[in-house]
Amino acid sequence: MAERVNPVKIKKILGDSQTLTHDLIVVEEPLEIRVGYGLEAQRQQVTITVTMRTPDDDEHLCLGFLYNEGVISSSKEVLSAKYCNNNVEEDGGDNVMRVELASDIGFKPNDYKRNFYTNSSCGVCGKASIEHVKQVCEPVANTDLKVSVKTILGLEQVLESTQDIFKHTGGLHACGLFDSHGKILLYKEDVGRHNALDKLIGSLLLSNLLPADNNILLLSGRISFELVQKAVRAGIPIIAAIGAPSSLSIALAKECGVTIIGFLKERGFNIYTGFDRIIE
Amino acid sequence: MAERVNPVKIKKILGDSQTLTHDLIVVEEPLEIRVGYGLEAQRQQVTITVTMRTPDDDEHLCLGFLYNEGVISSSKEVLSAKYCNNNVEEDGGDNVMRVELASDIGFKPNDYKRNFYTNSSCGVCGKASIEHVKQVCEPVANTDLKVSVKTILGLEQVLESTQDIFKHTGGLHACGLFDSHGKILLYKEDVGRHNALDKLIGSLLLSNLLPADNNILLLSGRISFELVQKAVRAGIPIIAAIGAPSSLSIALAKECGVTIIGFLKERGFNIYTGFDRIIE
Repeated sequence: MAERVNPVKIKKILGDSQTLTHDLIVVEEPLEIRVGYGLEAQRQQVTITVTMRTPDDDEHLCLGFLYNEGVISSSKEVLSAKYCNNNVEEDGGDNVMRVELASDIGFKPNDYKRNFYTNSSCGVCGKASIEHVKQVCEPVANTDLKVSVKTILGLEQVLESTQDIFKHTGGLHACGLFDSHGKILLYKEDVGRHNALDKLIGSLLLSNLLPADNNILLLSGRISFELVQKAVRAGIPIIAAIGAPSSLSIALAKECGVTIIGFLKERGFNIYTGFDRIIE
Repeated sequence: MAERVNPVKIKKILGDSQTLTHDLIVVEEPLEIRVGYGLEAQRQQVTITVTMRTPDDDEHLCLGFLYNEGVISSSKEVLSAKYCNNNVEEDGGDNVMRVELASDIGFKPNDYKRNFYTNSSCGVCGKASIEHVKQVCEPVANTDLKVSVKTILGLEQVLESTQDIFKHTGGLHACGLFDSHGKILLYKEDVGRHNALDKLIGSLLLSNLLPADNNILLLSGRISFELVQKAVRAGIPIIAAIGAPSSLSIALAKECGVTIIGFLKERGFNIYTGFDRIIE
């Protein structure tokens, strides 16, 4: 079983002090859920979904997912749930689980089509996910951008004073785009944090402002792999967030040259990758 | 354009006082993104995804999504993005957007298969989404369960003292299952909040403890449609959360007889649906 928590080296900014130290981050890795089904003589296999999860309780995750999607309705319909360690490369073995359904439950893949995912032939692991992003996106090119600690410390207050619906409902994710001096350029809200970022990037696209390679992205929540992926595609070199980053978001940011800042508060923040972009 | 915020009637518990009042909640509605593509004489259409979003900036959302998935790389590749008001029933018109791609960009649906969604023939709207859940799940049957205000007020502290990885990383969603006296029975964590709940329900399934119709579910974050859907499927009659519920989560809970509690704090909380289950 993969670890659920990883230590990473960070730079901690608090008031005027800067310390190189360690922080624990939560592990995020893809899990591919496969289903084996059909009569004994003609067993078939289909990939139902790939989800980004924290490795732990994977059997529970697979069965809960299948139950919640209506594929199974009792544990009796499941013969076994096992990792496919033998047919995936490197460390992908703990990231693919095959659930054997009883032959008589009459599972029909087409009934659940909306959740189906066609994955590539290679193993499912963090490394493969990062390689995939690198194929689609250019690494972030702008290594010249420097932003001061003071600018970063000011971002949250601007976002807070801008957040419109959140003030009234407390129910939204927000993201804002800033210039290198901390001036807010664009701001979007949504119940889904990926939607908020899609809205922001769609707006930049329409205004022909991509790549946004001189800008800072601020997120109201946590930083996941998927959000870094979108930022990389938009060429954004700095992502700051009020919440914590995941292991895979940090690994992707490192590979693509993105600066990751987490736990942004009034008096301090943590830098996880790309320390050099943040200056006194 | 649909509203982004809706008023709802709530019961507000604060210390010993109970007040019937109103709260503003954020609107959550499905958006179906369709793409029109191909040469002029043979235009085709495909549904790329359905996402739960807050209605606003839908054109930006569609274009940002298509850009981030690598379908388009410039706004020049898009001819138009319009609501399909004319061919969906009732209020689904603002929930389906068709993006016309330039005929020469050579879009191939199969290259993006993993994101594709096959929806039913009826309109995409909150009502249709709720009807779909009701077809798959039994409404929550247990109307006898009563839980005291004091029990609800105690839940958060139990969850907080239980949260394992979160204490170290700040990067996780958690969910816990409690009995009607506030005793914790099961607890799961994950980077994805839907995964945490899938793990919990999968564990209940394996132990033959479904339906969990005498239990309370506590969520560390907000309440979305998808999370209520999973709870309904597991027969859970009370969902409490530290964060806010969305409009569609409340509508689904009402239809299925689930009690929704939001903004749970040390001294108070809001009840959004199923007031009668919570007693002094």
